[in-house]
Amino acid sequence: MEENNPAQLSALRAAQAIREGELTSEELVEACLTRIAEREEQIGAWKHLDEEFALRQAREADLAKREGKALGPLHGVPVGIKDVIDTADLPTENGSPLHAGRRPTEDAAVVSLLKSAGAVIMGKTVTTEFAVYHPGKTKNPHDPNRTPGGSSSGSAASVASNMVPAAVGSQTNGSTIRPASFCGVCGFKPTHGSISRYGMLPQSRPIDHVGLFARSVEDLAFLGDQVMVFDTRDPDMRPHAAPRLLDVAASEPPVAPRFAFVKTPVWKQAEEDAQAAFEELAERLGGEVVEEVELPEPFHSAIEWHQVILESNLARNFETEYERGKDQLSDLLRKMMERGKTYLAVDYTRAVEKVPVLNGLLGETFERFDAILTPPAPGQAPLGLGATGNPVFCTIWTLCGTPAVTLPLLEGADGMPIGVQLVGPKGDDARLLRTARWLESRLGG
Amino acid sequence: MEENNPAQLSALRAAQAIREGELTSEELVEACLTRIAEREEQIGAWKHLDEEFALRQAREADLAKREGKALGPLHGVPVGIKDVIDTADLPTENGSPLHAGRRPTEDAAVVSLLKSAGAVIMGKTVTTEFAVYHPGKTKNPHDPNRTPGGSSSGSAASVASNMVPAAVGSQTNGSTIRPASFCGVCGFKPTHGSISRYGMLPQSRPIDHVGLFARSVEDLAFLGDQVMVFDTRDPDMRPHAAPRLLDVAASEPPVAPRFAFVKTPVWKQAEEDAQAAFEELAERLGGEVVEEVELPEPFHSAIEWHQVILESNLARNFETEYERGKDQLSDLLRKMMERGKTYLAVDYTRAVEKVPVLNGLLGETFERFDAILTPPAPGQAPLGLGATGNPVFCTIWTLCGTPAVTLPLLEGADGMPIGVQLVGPKGDDARLLRTARWLESRLGG
Repeated sequence: MEENNPAQLSALRAAQAIREGELTSEELVEACLTRIAEREEQIGAWKHLDEEFALRQAREADLAKREGKALGPLHGVPVGIKDVIDTADLPTENGSPLHAGRRPTEDAAVVSLLKSAGAVIMGKTVTTEFAVYHPGKTKNPHDPNRTPGGSSSGSAASVASNMVPAAVGSQTNGSTIRPASFCGVCGFKPTHGSISRYGMLPQSRPIDHVGLFARSVEDLAFLGDQVMVFDTRDPDMRPHAAPRLLDVAASEPPVAPRFAFVKTPVWKQAEEDAQAAFEELAERLGGEVVEEVELPEPFHSAIEWHQVILESNLARNFETEYERGKDQLSDLLRKMMERGKTYLAVDYTRAVEKVPVLNGLLGETFERFDAILTPPAPGQAPLGLGATGNPVFCTIWTLCGTPAVTLPLLEGADGMPIGVQLVGPKGDDARLLRTARWLESRLGG
Repeated sequence: MEENNPAQLSALRAAQAIREGELTSEELVEACLTRIAEREEQIGAWKHLDEEFALRQAREADLAKREGKALGPLHGVPVGIKDVIDTADLPTENGSPLHAGRRPTEDAAVVSLLKSAGAVIMGKTVTTEFAVYHPGKTKNPHDPNRTPGGSSSGSAASVASNMVPAAVGSQTNGSTIRPASFCGVCGFKPTHGSISRYGMLPQSRPIDHVGLFARSVEDLAFLGDQVMVFDTRDPDMRPHAAPRLLDVAASEPPVAPRFAFVKTPVWKQAEEDAQAAFEELAERLGGEVVEEVELPEPFHSAIEWHQVILESNLARNFETEYERGKDQLSDLLRKMMERGKTYLAVDYTRAVEKVPVLNGLLGETFERFDAILTPPAPGQAPLGLGATGNPVFCTIWTLCGTPAVTLPLLEGADGMPIGVQLVGPKGDDARLLRTARWLESRLGG
């Protein structure tokens, strides 16, 4: 890819260039489309891409600028949207043949907000089946023999390969943080209930999150500022002040942050090279900055509680699909749903009630540390395209609904990227991104 | 009871008299305590009553007034609190020997709000076992051989017998509206999530409500204004503007209200005298004002969905009590819990998801009518003290979380009071009370 290709720009830099007249949205979208034309056959990041539709939005954005209209922060910048998030202009097929040809009449809240901010909706990115585990066509941009991770496979891969500067995904277990780590980009799962899920495929209300992908922490903050807006249509949202993520993330921490290195109860599932990379990272940052912290006993059951919630809700939310065509569901999903049908209401509600308990237990750690530092995945992207890798290192944080971010700071034995996951207390997304940016500038680039 | 006894005053009138120096709080509380001394042996409305504590609060209120301090709207007015709502100054035993001697360290949100408004916490009123069905000691003030209804038995009976002008209860099925109807007072179950349940015994989060008792609609509005305040500690609350219930309820409707007479799918369970009284009422109000409306088909399953939610949550919320001493639970509760343990998570979540669906279906009715007019109970308070009567006429509205109010406007075959229940759309509590006051002034007194 030649230097100074606009497709390489960050979303923030691209928006600035468009605003200042150094670049048109059409030039940017053209550059991204060219990049897609070069790489898509190998990577397969896109499910629905309508070049004309993307260019039309870009030309409208350029016209609005020439006419002196007010420009949104993302004016003219293309964003990819995971194909479980409704778009009125493009199909939304949820990664299943059972929803083939599905065409929403209304944009999801997050899409509306991006449009309001001036973004160009580039197209729909590949998801696994119903955002669960059965993979789509996408391959890892760093190695076509490896999974990009899932379920937001196309969103991660498209950002990693400079097809778009930013993309939206989702996370109900490890669907944003894991593919971001595998593809070597930044991923951000904000606090549960801080981005509206209205118009996003419901998988499991207590643990469904919208996720964001970009190539820098600054861009995650920039994107988050546009979409973390209260919406009564998401029953788990509470009004909150504008988070000012970018302002805070761009500022220097008042004192150097401290990290709790949390290996989690599943540390043994991490691969040797990843374990070594994390131990080394902790050493490199030094004892003043990083201290190992063990999660208290209840966290040992967190993965089980997450499973009860997730599978119960899969069984309920895809009931119609199961009845209509269970033979068109993957074996894996069918088995999860069949298990989900057997869970008892008391066990489900008990699991849901553990969420505030676990967050309470994290309080002490977050009093002493700015963020938890922990693996986003067991290691680098595994070989093979039949599965999307193990989400287990994300499960606790998804269950808790805490904000989590991953940065592509490490490398596996085969030179594949490995992310570093940082987790903060619920609601303090801005500070988490500030801490992440501190780490990024200390270790990155 | 002699005329001009302050114990007969409404809360609003009493507060005004205290504010204007016509009455001291001590005189009012003394009058209420005298009334209690006269009637308590027969009625048994109180679980915890500390005369000295009540009088001390009254004297402090009078001192504050003499010192020219700012006075809250309820300054010096005594209020009864159901014994499932935590009080730091008095025990809260939840109607079960398993919680005997329980002494909370903190006031429930609703108690704090009443205190902030200047109210005197008169004492704790009798509840059924864990606010479910197994009765406490309370008898109906109109006939000691009849149930006062439940679960807020003492709150209804104490207000009905002029022991306090107002009381707080709860409702998870028919626990406010039914005893209000049986005891001949006004009862109000505001919209789900409009009064904080922080510090109230959790029975079933999706359907637990705080309820209010008084002897006029005006007083319900006055009381509601003090306690319908956003509280982040109740996860089902959303911020809302102060409802200005009293202002709205005291105003005249711009046009005469229209009522949808809803017999509900359980009309056959209503007693003959009650059926006749309601038919007569509809006739008396006339076809311009009242029109019979049938609920659409999904409401036929509402009682089943309510049962799945309630019993699943009872099984979960009283798990510890069941393990610690199931022999100290009533047979009835034990059976509900044992059934509750068998429900599946998919059936539980499906039932919970029906709530917005049912409210959507009510939309059409509320476009055409100001309120639904419907029985609060199958008829007058039944004979016998071994049960608290049938809550089934409240179940649909509790499941939906719609505001409901009952007014003592009818009479049964034995001269016992029968209430008229009005139901409005979620969130429009003020208009419902205005409509109720219109009906009260048209038919009452």
